[in-house]
Amino acid sequence: MLIVGELINSSRKPIAQAIAARDKAYLQDLAVKQVEAGANIIDVNCGTSLGEEASIMAWLVDIIQEVVDVPLCIDTPSPEALEAGLSRHKGKAMINSITAEKERWEKVLPLVTKYKASVIGLCMDDTGMPETVEDRLRVAERIVSGLISAGVPLEDIYLDPLIKPLGVNSSYGKEALESTRALKEKFPKVHLICGLSNVSYGLPERRLLNRAFAIMCLTMGMDAFILDPLDRSLMSLLTAAKALAGLDEYCLEYITAARSGKLVV
Amino acid sequence: MLIVGELINSSRKPIAQAIAARDKAYLQDLAVKQVEAGANIIDVNCGTSLGEEASIMAWLVDIIQEVVDVPLCIDTPSPEALEAGLSRHKGKAMINSITAEKERWEKVLPLVTKYKASVIGLCMDDTGMPETVEDRLRVAERIVSGLISAGVPLEDIYLDPLIKPLGVNSSYGKEALESTRALKEKFPKVHLICGLSNVSYGLPERRLLNRAFAIMCLTMGMDAFILDPLDRSLMSLLTAAKALAGLDEYCLEYITAARSGKLVV
Repeated sequence: MLIVGELINSSRKPIAQAIAARDKAYLQDLAVKQVEAGANIIDVNCGTSLGEEASIMAWLVDIIQEVVDVPLCIDTPSPEALEAGLSRHKGKAMINSITAEKERWEKVLPLVTKYKASVIGLCMDDTGMPETVEDRLRVAERIVSGLISAGVPLEDIYLDPLIKPLGVNSSYGKEALESTRALKEKFPKVHLICGLSNVSYGLPERRLLNRAFAIMCLTMGMDAFILDPLDRSLMSLLTAAKALAGLDEYCLEYITAARSGKLVV
Repeated sequence: MLIVGELINSSRKPIAQAIAARDKAYLQDLAVKQVEAGANIIDVNCGTSLGEEASIMAWLVDIIQEVVDVPLCIDTPSPEALEAGLSRHKGKAMINSITAEKERWEKVLPLVTKYKASVIGLCMDDTGMPETVEDRLRVAERIVSGLISAGVPLEDIYLDPLIKPLGVNSSYGKEALESTRALKEKFPKVHLICGLSNVSYGLPERRLLNRAFAIMCLTMGMDAFILDPLDRSLMSLLTAAKALAGLDEYCLEYITAARSGKLVV
């Protein structure tokens, strides 16, 4: 299971302020805390820094890699900011994200292969957001076969079924879960990833929904999550769910976490 | 979704003591508290009351039905105690449980039809506990067809895939989840139920495992749970999971629970 720590994102006000003030210590501390809490990758998003996104991305990659050893996930729809981040990144980065939209595909694919990054493929194309399980399977087929043709190894591909807010339509959770199961059946060797927080957008007690949804996605075969690793309840539930799904031999990770007092009950 | 409150069970020491002392007020209070917390049925088990199980079961049914309106789940392997409970029960009871074991089947089936009770069918027969998904499907087929032949309506049947302790074998969680999915596919109109706590037996922080497992089972199609309804975190997660599974139109139940402060986050 792969945990991508989501907290360094300028759509969050304290992060936007820290970036504006070039508050290196605050941002570095947040990266370290996420890794200590169990993040395997740190997402870096400065999309709200209009006009200077590329230079800020480069700066963020520099300062975060000063303090953590895990890879970063360069999270931007801007090819310029993406390349700025990738060019400064040491080791294998993750790209968030490519889609089957013609323009995005053509601009991002060369960066995936040039930097030998792992890549998140969002199941959407120029017709817009997917509406059904079948929409996602069709787009995923194009993304996976396109990436393989370009030489990207299967294990570097992370498909994101795209999670829509449950508050907009109470069938969106089910749609996402069934999509996850269908994608797992069709592409058993490709990773499946999602950002948890979209599902709860606009609803009360969002953390509760995010926690339940993480476990439900894992049950359907998802193996990577973009989430807040400082939510200890969420991380504890995922540790338990991993054991229950048979992904933790002899429950060793679970028992170790329990004994070291890491689990919140 | 059906919640069976599990707390009135004499294998729990305070209950055994309350039964021994005929502490009516304590037992009634526990029934009321479980219903207030969301239980739709109250399980009643006095299996440790050797020699006098039948008379105690009758007493328990009497005193609990004095204070709650929900049905009771008469939980005993003893046909005598079962009939003692059923004969005192007002309205439609639930029987916990029948199996495909020859002797148990022959003794319990007449009580199911005589009292027109709903019934939990454990997926086991005279060969013992099931080892595989296929074992469960085979036994379930016998139980469901036998109950239908006897005139039991499909909606009164609750299949229990039998959950074994994860601490004994770290594949037991996965086995139970895959069994749930397979049973749901084969018997879409039959209910699926399980007791949550078996899965965590012998492991630390059992409540955490029970909570995650409830959500995982629900994701696979389980629609009834024997659990501790006073575990507010568990009940809150189930309310969230129900909405995420598309079982709560417009998320009304979730939003109402959130607004009334019932959700623990």
